[in-house]
Amino acid sequence: MISVGVIGATGYAGAELVRILAAHPGVELTILTSRKYAGKRMDDVFPALRGHVDLRCEPFEIERVCEVADVVFTALPHSVPMNIVPKLIENNIKVIDLSADFRFSDPGRYASAYEVHSCPELLEKAVYGLSEIFFERIAEAELVGNPGCYPTCTLLPLIPLLKDGIISSSGIVVDAKSGVSGAGRGLSLTTHFCEANESVKAYKVAVHRHEPEIESILSQSAGLDVDITFVPHLMPMSRGMETTIYAPLAGDAAADDVGACLGRYYERKKFIRIHTDGTPPDTRNVRYTNFCDIGYVIDKSNRRLILMAAIDNLVKGAAGQAVQNMNIMTGQDEDCGLTTVPFPV
Amino acid sequence: MISVGVIGATGYAGAELVRILAAHPGVELTILTSRKYAGKRMDDVFPALRGHVDLRCEPFEIERVCEVADVVFTALPHSVPMNIVPKLIENNIKVIDLSADFRFSDPGRYASAYEVHSCPELLEKAVYGLSEIFFERIAEAELVGNPGCYPTCTLLPLIPLLKDGIISSSGIVVDAKSGVSGAGRGLSLTTHFCEANESVKAYKVAVHRHEPEIESILSQSAGLDVDITFVPHLMPMSRGMETTIYAPLAGDAAADDVGACLGRYYERKKFIRIHTDGTPPDTRNVRYTNFCDIGYVIDKSNRRLILMAAIDNLVKGAAGQAVQNMNIMTGQDEDCGLTTVPFPV
Amino acid sequence: MISVGVIGATGYAGAELVRILAAHPGVELTILTSRKYAGKRMDDVFPALRGHVDLRCEPFEIERVCEVADVVFTALPHSVPMNIVPKLIENNIKVIDLSADFRFSDPGRYASAYEVHSCPELLEKAVYGLSEIFFERIAEAELVGNPGCYPTCTLLPLIPLLKDGIISSSGIVVDAKSGVSGAGRGLSLTTHFCEANESVKAYKVAVHRHEPEIESILSQSAGLDVDITFVPHLMPMSRGMETTIYAPLAGDAAADDVGACLGRYYERKKFIRIHTDGTPPDTRNVRYTNFCDIGYVIDKSNRRLILMAAIDNLVKGAAGQAVQNMNIMTGQDEDCGLTTVPFPV
Amino acid sequence: MISVGVIGATGYAGAELVRILAAHPGVELTILTSRKYAGKRMDDVFPALRGHVDLRCEPFEIERVCEVADVVFTALPHSVPMNIVPKLIENNIKVIDLSADFRFSDPGRYASAYEVHSCPELLEKAVYGLSEIFFERIAEAELVGNPGCYPTCTLLPLIPLLKDGIISSSGIVVDAKSGVSGAGRGLSLTTHFCEANESVKAYKVAVHRHEPEIESILSQSAGLDVDITFVPHLMPMSRGMETTIYAPLAGDAAADDVGACLGRYYERKKFIRIHTDGTPPDTRNVRYTNFCDIGYVIDKSNRRLILMAAIDNLVKGAAGQAVQNMNIMTGQDEDCGLTTVPFPV
Repeated sequence: MISVGVIGATGYAGAELVRILAAHPGVELTILTSRKYAGKRMDDVFPALRGHVDLRCEPFEIERVCEVADVVFTALPHSVPMNIVPKLIENNIKVIDLSADFRFSDPGRYASAYEVHSCPELLEKAVYGLSEIFFERIAEAELVGNPGCYPTCTLLPLIPLLKDGIISSSGIVVDAKSGVSGAGRGLSLTTHFCEANESVKAYKVAVHRHEPEIESILSQSAGLDVDITFVPHLMPMSRGMETTIYAPLAGDAAADDVGACLGRYYERKKFIRIHTDGTPPDTRNVRYTNFCDIGYVIDKSNRRLILMAAIDNLVKGAAGQAVQNMNIMTGQDEDCGLTTVPFPV
Repeated sequence: MISVGVIGATGYAGAELVRILAAHPGVELTILTSRKYAGKRMDDVFPALRGHVDLRCEPFEIERVCEVADVVFTALPHSVPMNIVPKLIENNIKVIDLSADFRFSDPGRYASAYEVHSCPELLEKAVYGLSEIFFERIAEAELVGNPGCYPTCTLLPLIPLLKDGIISSSGIVVDAKSGVSGAGRGLSLTTHFCEANESVKAYKVAVHRHEPEIESILSQSAGLDVDITFVPHLMPMSRGMETTIYAPLAGDAAADDVGACLGRYYERKKFIRIHTDGTPPDTRNVRYTNFCDIGYVIDKSNRRLILMAAIDNLVKGAAGQAVQNMNIMTGQDEDCGLTTVPFPV
Repeated sequence: MISVGVIGATGYAGAELVRILAAHPGVELTILTSRKYAGKRMDDVFPALRGHVDLRCEPFEIERVCEVADVVFTALPHSVPMNIVPKLIENNIKVIDLSADFRFSDPGRYASAYEVHSCPELLEKAVYGLSEIFFERIAEAELVGNPGCYPTCTLLPLIPLLKDGIISSSGIVVDAKSGVSGAGRGLSLTTHFCEANESVKAYKVAVHRHEPEIESILSQSAGLDVDITFVPHLMPMSRGMETTIYAPLAGDAAADDVGACLGRYYERKKFIRIHTDGTPPDTRNVRYTNFCDIGYVIDKSNRRLILMAAIDNLVKGAAGQAVQNMNIMTGQDEDCGLTTVPFPV
Repeated sequence: MISVGVIGATGYAGAELVRILAAHPGVELTILTSRKYAGKRMDDVFPALRGHVDLRCEPFEIERVCEVADVVFTALPHSVPMNIVPKLIENNIKVIDLSADFRFSDPGRYASAYEVHSCPELLEKAVYGLSEIFFERIAEAELVGNPGCYPTCTLLPLIPLLKDGIISSSGIVVDAKSGVSGAGRGLSLTTHFCEANESVKAYKVAVHRHEPEIESILSQSAGLDVDITFVPHLMPMSRGMETTIYAPLAGDAAADDVGACLGRYYERKKFIRIHTDGTPPDTRNVRYTNFCDIGYVIDKSNRRLILMAAIDNLVKGAAGQAVQNMNIMTGQDEDCGLTTVPFPV
């Protein structure tokens, strides 16, 4: 039984972590922290959890956390974890950080997208937690920078094809669509019900911070600088993310080659489901689960590959992948605690 | 390991049964039947299930079903099961029927709400599957008539208070609200997206067939004829059901007495969560789970009790309770396969 | 051409007023005030209005308002208008107040629902702006207290039947359902997208401030004290309100008598549409318009009338009825500026 | 007063036409036809219209139509109008056809996207009804092929920039998102509430029939063959369409040049609103109106223009533009009957 703490338990990603961990057979939840709700029971903050979680939220105190937890998830706004995680690591606690703080190996890239990093030396030790791609390194890691939702839903379909040279590394366009829960539990006009409902719009066009994150990993995979065009859109639904990716085919690859390449890479990966029949994935089919469904179509006359992927932004895009990473780091079955069967409707 | 079949696997209740049973540790799914999709793989009809279900839908053949299944769920339109179930019972198969066919002990009541019953003799053997209330009888049953969603969400809060004489048996009004999935997967203008979206309306006002079902069980519980006013409403959401029940207080009971009564009845019942703090239940907190959340407020100046209950219409209101009944009938833990932690968002 | 100002133009009711008034042929919008957005163009705050409104929001200054407006709408939180309206009235400006401040003729009732009233003497002059019911008094009024959305949707169906003695004045239950825009544009967790979406729940059970407002007008109509049970519910949609009202029939009235009574009262009222065929009204059919659709069914065995009404909470429930009142007060056609044909989908 | 008929009045586009025309000051609706609802009152089929439309649906009879109408809208499935329209034209009736039948000047293109055309000679006379672009030709036309919704939302932003050589004619990608009403009122599993709700997915990837329509007009504008990549997506909302268009910049144009070009083309066009401040358009801001909002951002490092446009798929994307075309063809103000102020929420 692993003792686990969640730092920042009352945001959406934090609460989703708690939900998954509450039912995880290899884990005991020992501490939940929340600045805002310190002193309140977690199931008073989220009545959905009643009967499954009986912990009370606490203020964050590093000593207390180190005392009761072997593994810690930090689900905090970026720039907060980089001041907490070093101490946890010093105390031999394994950490999965859900912010952007440990996603970049290059402090310069982090600085230009966010701000100057306060512990750049830890970036070398941190492993990017895209579970299916970096499994071996994650298994050895003490600190995982858990990927953003957009990067997860973009990198999983792209990396194998880029590595195998099936698509060109230049000219890639990513049109991404996210449910509103991706914006978190903090209040804003954008996420006010009447503003988001019955509305579709782009936002942060070509300036979203997930773009450099995606480019950084793609560049690493391709062995050369990759510069994409990335446009996120807000969808009138709570959960789910879809990316439609437009990539120039590098050679004379046909749809079968695309399917074969993806099939080979993800053959033993339980959470990746490849649509080999040309049907586009639907966010509804992965909702509340850790699956990533991937489809593809070739626009022949333009020699352009159209890749489509669907995830649940809070599960495979955040808390679910974080638990998957914990499983890998602690030698448990990769899907332990993540076996929810997707809902048919 | 119990061998289980689902007859009518490709409606919403059927598919939800398959989802739950696919992950049930004490069950092996051996046969799925569907008239419409016979020959197709279940996970082609519902791609959400890919990786979890690899059966192909078959046409219904009684011999084949009897051969491979010990327990059968029938998820069919009313009047179909009453022509199938007798043969299953003859073959010593335990049956949980999700239609109305075996919910009424009195064939006359069934006839006036539906049509003349073709095997009234089986009605005596059938047990009404409101799990928390009729647990002991269900444990002995070979045939369970699984309750409708509205009756489940109405009877669970009402029965204890009626039995204890806290509320009057006359003058009860039930204002019920259901998500669209309650109308099933069959196509209709009412359930066309643009007709149901951004719309609230009553339907089948005071003539819904769940009303006599509710009245029949309430009358039994109260020991005298109960005649309620029942108005269902269609809500612009996929899943969830809420009932707001207005009942005259019988004596001088206060809110604490209501809470004490409900608490006593449901003390050891995992799926019933009583809100003792006056907060109304929210369908969101039980979505995709087998929970029934119950709240209550007293309108003092009118001496009227306001009871509110929330369930997921396809889980506690259909497939989940059906599996709960199977667990009870086969001596398994009541919540086996039904331990999904509710989603915080 | 009447010069009109909107005080509090950037809440949802205020913006809806601006939308209607911008296209009103007998009106010139001369001033919009907003504390929060003073200095900003209205169509920057609400880009939907671009091309139709070119005013800039101003801070509220009484002299400036009196200078440029003949009629003023105040769309402010309760207790604010009672400190502003007296000065407007002194300056011979006609005022339609959308808050609760001038809805009660009895200062005591106002005080017990809200707080001590700062200008009780004005309450006598104020007319309750339920347009179809108090037309004659509104026509003479200088100050109208515009009804709340729940009261509008409850009183319009109830008043004729109560006055004609078709229903009893005791034992009335109102189960009301509102779209989220009713909660306004201010941020709150309740109206956060992911909290309201796919969710149905009651709130302020039997303690909502619209209940005394309803009771006050019903008592006046019935000539005796009426005490109702009122439970509002939040619906997962932006616009629309439905009330389902349960009322004991007083004598031996049949459905035809109900229809005849409502027909007689609302014969010449363009915005009231009576469903004489038993079909329940649908909020979708009145969305974005000033209509109130009313249906009714009798539950014979219980001798209970079920009344159902649907409005758009921001139009007939707020801004639309306010403009209707302005039309009446200024001698224009009652439906001037309010002729939007409801959208078929 | 122009006498107008709507052939196929009970689909969503037809009903929207009826709604607009019912309030159009220069028009009298004289005939509505519907195969399915012949004999029924239009406001029984669409109760929203009660009080505004009192016509009864008729079966289609060419003589009767010619007798009572000067202008006819045909809102029928493709391939039906091409067998009706020739007779209407012979009878000197002006026709606006909302199907694809008269959108292609080249019968070969029509044949490869749909089927062999039965009256190719009429294609020469037909004018493509993209109102802002082909105003002069529409003014002279007797027959207008009203554009599809996707083409409208794609061509309006693209044409000026392509004509002015600001973007390249090759390498254009269109990622389009549509509300469910675009799929019409006919029943299908795709548009069943629970299948479309809380779901985002692509469909007809690179094979949608609107793609050749777009390419045909773009090619004409550019004076050379244009081949785009077009992927439509279904959004969980009733109304609204957004296109995000990725186009390589041809020279060294900056954002200001894009704005200047669009501004010049659409200077006097009331229904086009250019966002010159970089904010993306939101479908919510044009809902229920004939506006097309256009925004743009340049992805500098890739020298790629990102164009975004938003319309209401049933108004500017169908019925509204059709009425706009009628106005142009009959010498009325272009926006007559189309002046609905967009709703702020």
